[in-house]
Amino acid sequence: MTQTREAFEARLRQIGTERYHDRHPFHHRLHGGDCTPDEVRAWVINRYQYQHCIPLKDAAFMSRVEDPDLRRAWRSRIEDHDGTDTNEGGIRRWLRLADAVGLDRDYVASRQGVLPATRFAVEAYVRYVRDKSLLEAVAASLTELFAPKIHAGRIEGLLKHYDFADDSALSYFRNRLTEAPKDVAFGLDWVLGHADTAEKQDAAANALIFKTEVLWAQLDALWGAYVEGRIPPGAWQPGEGLASPKAA
Amino acid sequence: MTQTREAFEARLRQIGTERYHDRHPFHHRLHGGDCTPDEVRAWVINRYQYQHCIPLKDAAFMSRVEDPDLRRAWRSRIEDHDGTDTNEGGIRRWLRLADAVGLDRDYVASRQGVLPATRFAVEAYVRYVRDKSLLEAVAASLTELFAPKIHAGRIEGLLKHYDFADDSALSYFRNRLTEAPKDVAFGLDWVLGHADTAEKQDAAANALIFKTEVLWAQLDALWGAYVEGRIPPGAWQPGEGLASPKAA
Repeated sequence: MTQTREAFEARLRQIGTERYHDRHPFHHRLHGGDCTPDEVRAWVINRYQYQHCIPLKDAAFMSRVEDPDLRRAWRSRIEDHDGTDTNEGGIRRWLRLADAVGLDRDYVASRQGVLPATRFAVEAYVRYVRDKSLLEAVAASLTELFAPKIHAGRIEGLLKHYDFADDSALSYFRNRLTEAPKDVAFGLDWVLGHADTAEKQDAAANALIFKTEVLWAQLDALWGAYVEGRIPPGAWQPGEGLASPKAA
Repeated sequence: MTQTREAFEARLRQIGTERYHDRHPFHHRLHGGDCTPDEVRAWVINRYQYQHCIPLKDAAFMSRVEDPDLRRAWRSRIEDHDGTDTNEGGIRRWLRLADAVGLDRDYVASRQGVLPATRFAVEAYVRYVRDKSLLEAVAASLTELFAPKIHAGRIEGLLKHYDFADDSALSYFRNRLTEAPKDVAFGLDWVLGHADTAEKQDAAANALIFKTEVLWAQLDALWGAYVEGRIPPGAWQPGEGLASPKAA
């Protein structure tokens, strides 16, 4: 049976409560100040793979949208990440964080050393948005419903616990505090409006679940490799990719 | 500089020595008899995802092969997995293993409960074969160079250490002992013959590395979820998917 708009929104939010990666132990370890410097570096390196692919994902989406209004509304996501004349953009802001933790930003940008499991998860997201219905693609983006809380907590936790953390290093998260709610208000309204049958509601809910799996798998991979110490062959080893002393 | 056929083959074999998943701790745990029954079940459930996708991968490959001879040579791989009038096929043989470890084969075949990281890795392989050059697709299959050793050791280790292991349960691996060498002899010869520039040799070697990453990531995911106990939301929980008592 098709759910009411309110009930369906509650169902989507419940997915976040149960499955968003703020429930992952790596998240708590990072925000609680328990990560070693190398664990933070591993997070910065691997999460860059996600940053790198987000505009590819948004472009793949736009390449399938026939409605100019929807494309116009979506385009700001690419601008937010890639930057404009007046906005540095999320990708370059992430590389400031790389600088701050002592990594060579060219190494991070090269995506050498990214965990294969991270690549597989992030690429699965890009493919999903390329191949599935527009409704599923928009619904998958709705993890941003849960992001402002994580970003606010992240800024606070990192500032409190890590020497490297300052306004410049954390500007990525500061900007997402305003960008993500704008995007997700649009996306949520679009999904609530377009998921007008039970079947479409199920598809949209499953898309959001899929996306939580993409995020969770990235933290699982970090935990296994850099907390447990089972680094897969070829992945980043602590000590690699550091900025040269003069740049530090 | 283009390597000689012999040097290039040695380079490919060296990738197996350094990166094949027989070096992963889950492999040693399984073959050494140290896996709990639920860890074995988790392996059976998740590895089924790989079995499920192998014929999709081979069909995706054949869908891009213009040469009837190459398609004919490749087709036996699908027959080996899907079966023929006279051959049960690898997928049904894997489900016999599911029976043997007390799982409901319909549950296993449904692929509910498969770890997201397993799905992402296996799907990355199918996509790779669909999207990359034929040379890279064939080269990625060459992990079978290293498989007979793992299958022989697996049969021996499982028979020795686990009560469920008998000829019926292990028929999948017994059959792969003869199927894999036939496939890989063809694939290796094809890759050695077609990788006739340094650039193509690099591409083929990278394809083989990619494939080792696909396999390794699956065991990493198993280890994190079922040895370390960090089971992601929605994945198989011990006790689920068991065969009903009458079937046991």
